[in-house]
Amino acid sequence: MSVLVVGSVAYDGIETPFGQVDRILGGSATYISLTSSFFSDDVKLVGVVGSDFADEDIRLLESRNIDLDGLQVDESGKTFFWKGKYHFDLNTRDTLDTQLNVFEHFDPVIPDSWRNSKYIALGNIEPGLQSKVLEQVHRPELIVMDTMNFWIEKTLDQLKETISKIDMLVINDSEARELTGTHNLFKAAGEIKDLGPGHLVIKKGEHGALLFTGDEVFSAPAYPVIDIFDPTGAGDTFMGGLLGWLSYTDDLEPQNMRRAVIFGSVMASFCVEKFGPDRLKSVSEDDIYSRYKEFRDLSLIPDVQAG
Amino acid sequence: MSVLVVGSVAYDGIETPFGQVDRILGGSATYISLTSSFFSDDVKLVGVVGSDFADEDIRLLESRNIDLDGLQVDESGKTFFWKGKYHFDLNTRDTLDTQLNVFEHFDPVIPDSWRNSKYIALGNIEPGLQSKVLEQVHRPELIVMDTMNFWIEKTLDQLKETISKIDMLVINDSEARELTGTHNLFKAAGEIKDLGPGHLVIKKGEHGALLFTGDEVFSAPAYPVIDIFDPTGAGDTFMGGLLGWLSYTDDLEPQNMRRAVIFGSVMASFCVEKFGPDRLKSVSEDDIYSRYKEFRDLSLIPDVQAG
Repeated sequence: MSVLVVGSVAYDGIETPFGQVDRILGGSATYISLTSSFFSDDVKLVGVVGSDFADEDIRLLESRNIDLDGLQVDESGKTFFWKGKYHFDLNTRDTLDTQLNVFEHFDPVIPDSWRNSKYIALGNIEPGLQSKVLEQVHRPELIVMDTMNFWIEKTLDQLKETISKIDMLVINDSEARELTGTHNLFKAAGEIKDLGPGHLVIKKGEHGALLFTGDEVFSAPAYPVIDIFDPTGAGDTFMGGLLGWLSYTDDLEPQNMRRAVIFGSVMASFCVEKFGPDRLKSVSEDDIYSRYKEFRDLSLIPDVQAG
Repeated sequence: MSVLVVGSVAYDGIETPFGQVDRILGGSATYISLTSSFFSDDVKLVGVVGSDFADEDIRLLESRNIDLDGLQVDESGKTFFWKGKYHFDLNTRDTLDTQLNVFEHFDPVIPDSWRNSKYIALGNIEPGLQSKVLEQVHRPELIVMDTMNFWIEKTLDQLKETISKIDMLVINDSEARELTGTHNLFKAAGEIKDLGPGHLVIKKGEHGALLFTGDEVFSAPAYPVIDIFDPTGAGDTFMGGLLGWLSYTDDLEPQNMRRAVIFGSVMASFCVEKFGPDRLKSVSEDDIYSRYKEFRDLSLIPDVQAG
């Protein structure tokens, strides 16, 4: 099934305790598309880049069969640039530089032939723009959306309005707490589902993820990564793996939703092994299925005989 | 198999956002013994109480077939008393009052006939006293130990010495980080196992628990408790369920260790539903096995067919 991805395409400057890189391909739409492309051969990207966007990055995306007809090239400026530095624990980071550049006036236009896309990923952009995307598409099977604390603080009403129109929200635990003002994640999940989405994933970093679908709760483990090299893009990679699997199987039953959360976790666990999207360039299908099996082993609870 | 439990027996005063109780049975040995008794009919308790220790509390412990021949009654003073107040998120608490009383000079003496006990629980007491217990026992199958940040800060060398003699350490995530000075829990686990114990459990509260046994890692989910009423004793209850199951099955293979971690989690999930040990008084075998099954369902990852 077709996957439509809308979000940022960017260059990132990254400092971690293990090294630094001045400029590497980044952005939510980039990570989501790249990762979905491991599962779907029909991924379409809507975003904007500037005059400095490198041919090699175009070729990378094209090599993954990502359709770039919706990628606007705005020659009047440069590509969105973000620079950040991760603290020693890799759980927190400081933003050192943000240059919105051509992304500041990003107006997502969905090409006519893409408006029937069945699986839609709304990467983390201004919630009004996310709604604007939804006005342009026809009866998708599933709309998955990300957001961030910035929008919760700045545009809460618009954000809730957008959330009411989607099928699945994928956010991290601190965002779930901030969005609801509720500390207990299981309670917060109920409040978020009351806003509209039938499905919710709360990402907890080193503690795995929680899926709420219908009345079911699924607790997914985190992969025991001893040396996280660079967390950049892990959240978007998670969403890409999740949506990629769902579009590939076209099955939204709870059991398959669980698989999707694990494939998201699998892809994120690869992503953090190298700078930016570098590790995603070399992941094989065998790598993916082997790690899926490792996740199963990691959380397998053996049966017992009562009494 | 016999279970020998050494630790504190206390009265607690507890304030939570949901209510308060001035004086309720508490202490690590109390919770561990009570919980182990759901799995083992041969639980022995070593501790000390004062002249104020109530007959009804003796009767409660005896009603669970807990052998109290090692419970010293020191008529010269009162029972250890602790009073604490939980914050709104129930993750943090302030100690309002600590009266060590007869516990201040606790000197654990293991009755001769108990020195061949096979499963030993060292509740959270001064690590030198924990070592003293170990000098009195003969070739146990498994020694499980708890500790707390206080001992990590005050008596680190003695603590490491004691840890080197045990088989399994059960601590929470902040303690694992403080003990090793390492943020990443998987890395910290390796460093703790290098101190000696072949098995390690790191409890993560709302995020479940991690078991490290041999080269295996097991990630256990947390039960989705929306309304935690009172967290007091949850950690000791966890240890009691874990050790109770291991002693009942007398099987230390990794698969059975996983079951033990889940039974610990099951019992802790009951414990937090009421004040102090109140909920443990009414738990049935059916309750326990039903909740075990709920834990299995919660983290079950369906298989996939590669390609």
